[in-house]
Amino acid sequence: MENASSPSPPQKPTTLLTFPKALATSSSKIKHVIVDFSIKAKNIGVDDPRRIAHSLKVALAITLVSMVYYLQPLYNGMGDAGMWAILTVVVVFEYTVGATLCKGMNRGLATLLAGALGIGAESFASLFGTTAKPIVLGCLVFILVGAATFSRFIPNIKRRYDYGVLIFILTFSLVSVSGYRVERIIELAHKRLSTILFGGATCIIISMCVCPVWAGEDLHQLIGENLEKLANFLEGFGGEYFRITEGDKPSLASYKSVLNSKATEESLANFAWWEVGHGNFRFRHPWKQYLMIGALTRQCAYHIEALNGYLDRKTEAPSEFQKTIKEPCMKMSSEVGKAMKELGLSIKLMMHPSGSASAIHMESCKKAKEELNTMLQTVMVGEHDIIDTIPVIAVTSILVDVINRVETISEAIEELAKQAHFKKSKNTKLDKKEKPNFLNDGGPLEPANGGKNRESVAITVASLNRG
Amino acid sequence: MENASSPSPPQKPTTLLTFPKALATSSSKIKHVIVDFSIKAKNIGVDDPRRIAHSLKVALAITLVSMVYYLQPLYNGMGDAGMWAILTVVVVFEYTVGATLCKGMNRGLATLLAGALGIGAESFASLFGTTAKPIVLGCLVFILVGAATFSRFIPNIKRRYDYGVLIFILTFSLVSVSGYRVERIIELAHKRLSTILFGGATCIIISMCVCPVWAGEDLHQLIGENLEKLANFLEGFGGEYFRITEGDKPSLASYKSVLNSKATEESLANFAWWEVGHGNFRFRHPWKQYLMIGALTRQCAYHIEALNGYLDRKTEAPSEFQKTIKEPCMKMSSEVGKAMKELGLSIKLMMHPSGSASAIHMESCKKAKEELNTMLQTVMVGEHDIIDTIPVIAVTSILVDVINRVETISEAIEELAKQAHFKKSKNTKLDKKEKPNFLNDGGPLEPANGGKNRESVAITVASLNRG
Repeated sequence: MENASSPSPPQKPTTLLTFPKALATSSSKIKHVIVDFSIKAKNIGVDDPRRIAHSLKVALAITLVSMVYYLQPLYNGMGDAGMWAILTVVVVFEYTVGATLCKGMNRGLATLLAGALGIGAESFASLFGTTAKPIVLGCLVFILVGAATFSRFIPNIKRRYDYGVLIFILTFSLVSVSGYRVERIIELAHKRLSTILFGGATCIIISMCVCPVWAGEDLHQLIGENLEKLANFLEGFGGEYFRITEGDKPSLASYKSVLNSKATEESLANFAWWEVGHGNFRFRHPWKQYLMIGALTRQCAYHIEALNGYLDRKTEAPSEFQKTIKEPCMKMSSEVGKAMKELGLSIKLMMHPSGSASAIHMESCKKAKEELNTMLQTVMVGEHDIIDTIPVIAVTSILVDVINRVETISEAIEELAKQAHFKKSKNTKLDKKEKPNFLNDGGPLEPANGGKNRESVAITVASLNRG
Repeated sequence: MENASSPSPPQKPTTLLTFPKALATSSSKIKHVIVDFSIKAKNIGVDDPRRIAHSLKVALAITLVSMVYYLQPLYNGMGDAGMWAILTVVVVFEYTVGATLCKGMNRGLATLLAGALGIGAESFASLFGTTAKPIVLGCLVFILVGAATFSRFIPNIKRRYDYGVLIFILTFSLVSVSGYRVERIIELAHKRLSTILFGGATCIIISMCVCPVWAGEDLHQLIGENLEKLANFLEGFGGEYFRITEGDKPSLASYKSVLNSKATEESLANFAWWEVGHGNFRFRHPWKQYLMIGALTRQCAYHIEALNGYLDRKTEAPSEFQKTIKEPCMKMSSEVGKAMKELGLSIKLMMHPSGSASAIHMESCKKAKEELNTMLQTVMVGEHDIIDTIPVIAVTSILVDVINRVETISEAIEELAKQAHFKKSKNTKLDKKEKPNFLNDGGPLEPANGGKNRESVAITVASLNRG
């Protein structure tokens, strides 16, 4: 509705238009909208062909389930049973295997639990006689539904069992006020459970066997890619800031997506928790460590965002001062970028980062930093206009901050490599003990705190997105 | 399951424990877990009592609907009808009015549309004779379900109509393979639609009349509070950095939640779009402008995060250089904080910000900045150790950046005040034209771009959270 403001072809004054002409205009407008829409849809498919595969998988699952019930030999109008199987497939089939498993398990277990409790509530209420029964039942439903709804605000329940609680509320209310006798309920429950199992199993099997999309693998890739995005910025930053390259800025901006990747990472990690082992990932892969690395990467991205601010407000020509410190500054930026790229690569390839090219780049980054320090000490003796130097000094300071962060990220990745048994690379030039503690001269950093208690919005977000 | 690692009381060696003692330990452990859980639950309720109200509202709606069907005069075992009403309440009732309206409308419209299409598909398939009918039906279901599932990846559809598409898939599959004749379907549809309407209307009425939680109002408050959180940091930063106050850091850290507020803001704005006018908010309140202010606030928070890095690594004692520039630096920080607090307040009170105290604080902030500039120019002539000065200069530079951002935020809030017809304050000391363009000497800033094309992760997030 609001999309009325989306781009439409510029209109000429229409006062002189005859009727067929107006018709032609509006038909071309519709054509334009349709073409526009199909291009958009095509791009979405091209960007990630797994989306097309997912659509076909869902269609396959629903067609399969509905046909089984439609064609069953004792066909006599599709009854309750078929309906519940289709309903299960529609709501349980999710994009990733983990999400599908999460919903399927939640649905199955919650239905069982709530069914049993519902039968209990019905029997209990029957003890009070026909008149009081509705009142007792009403009270029980009110109390349990209220408590269950409230439990959805508790973060731990929200994270893994939100859908289960929803299904619990539904099934409990349905069973306890169904008004059937217990024997009839058990018969019904048996029928319904088997249909839900059939629907759920269809979803899980198709989702796992036909072009599976593993949340864990996506998380793994995402964390590696985010590091590479930051690395790209850092590699390009020097050239851009000191006006060596020009006009390449759009490619630098890709790091912006890292700033807001928290929610994606957390939901992927939650779904990955449900997934069985696959490929290089065991059942209990250290997904939490990925979240830690993600949080540290985001911290680094915030600093890069501050750096980016200095690209926006660069002046016409580089100042004298800028030219003087250009060399070491550019080297720092590009070397830390290369180190980061190696770290991202070591995650993607599941190789142990220690002794890799990353350490070598960090080493030469450190050298550049020392060079810059000595240079600054000789240069700064009142030769330059202070107003010119302030932003440049700020840039170098933030750059040093970024380097410290990368050091922390590197430690977190080593921890991951240990926990997840990454392959050791062959050319371990630097032993763990020998490895210098790069550039950590800025005072104590607190990496472990970096990603933990800083981020508390997720719960609020999740509580709004309930489905 | 993973929560096994949550804090449990430290255990002494248990080798000498007798059986009853061991039992006592494990029962005290269980007691501990229960107490822990109830404290957590209580805190969740105390933090926002509206959560308790929401739980009671849901319980009320479900009890009401189930009792109506349970007690109806022609009671003969609760049939399909009651089931659909309960199901509708369970899935439609959301925390905010906007979300409930969004789901209710989506459910109603999608059921109507899909029902009609389903009847059409059934009739069309019947033309091909009994043998070919299942094949034709299967193909139709496959194509439409596939297309509908794919459409959920399109951002515009995802944002507002995701749930509608889900219900469309469900209803279309159910109706088209129901195997009933058209007359029977229409009778069924009539019955089911009326129950869905009854369930949906119950939700919407209770959600709007009993302690309503308006997404729009929440968004309005959130944007104002986020500004105040950043303001608190800035007001406290000077004292903390120059070691005037100590140990007050936890209160400074509240700004961290702003870094990840994007998803919350966007979903609130989406739900607010569905809400009818309430209180000071008209039906078409400029919610988009709130998102713009939110994005600019977040930009500012990234810079504050960079500032915060310098708090972590402050050295033992302030350097000479730090002492020299302390006064103007602290003034800049506290004045921009005060200006920001006033801006937040002007949103909360829906007052026009121009001519408010905010402009006065910005003015004195600008004075402090000029003071700092002159001071730096006289001080910097080789008197200080460059290594000491670098971080301090970086801090002042980032602070100037923050001031520029606040200026941009102020403009966005003025735009909002215009669009949403905020009240004009009485003491309009500064006319719009007279108002100086504070501190904007850092080169061109691009506020309008600030919040737009930078943030593209939301879609991915949303596509994972489907439910």
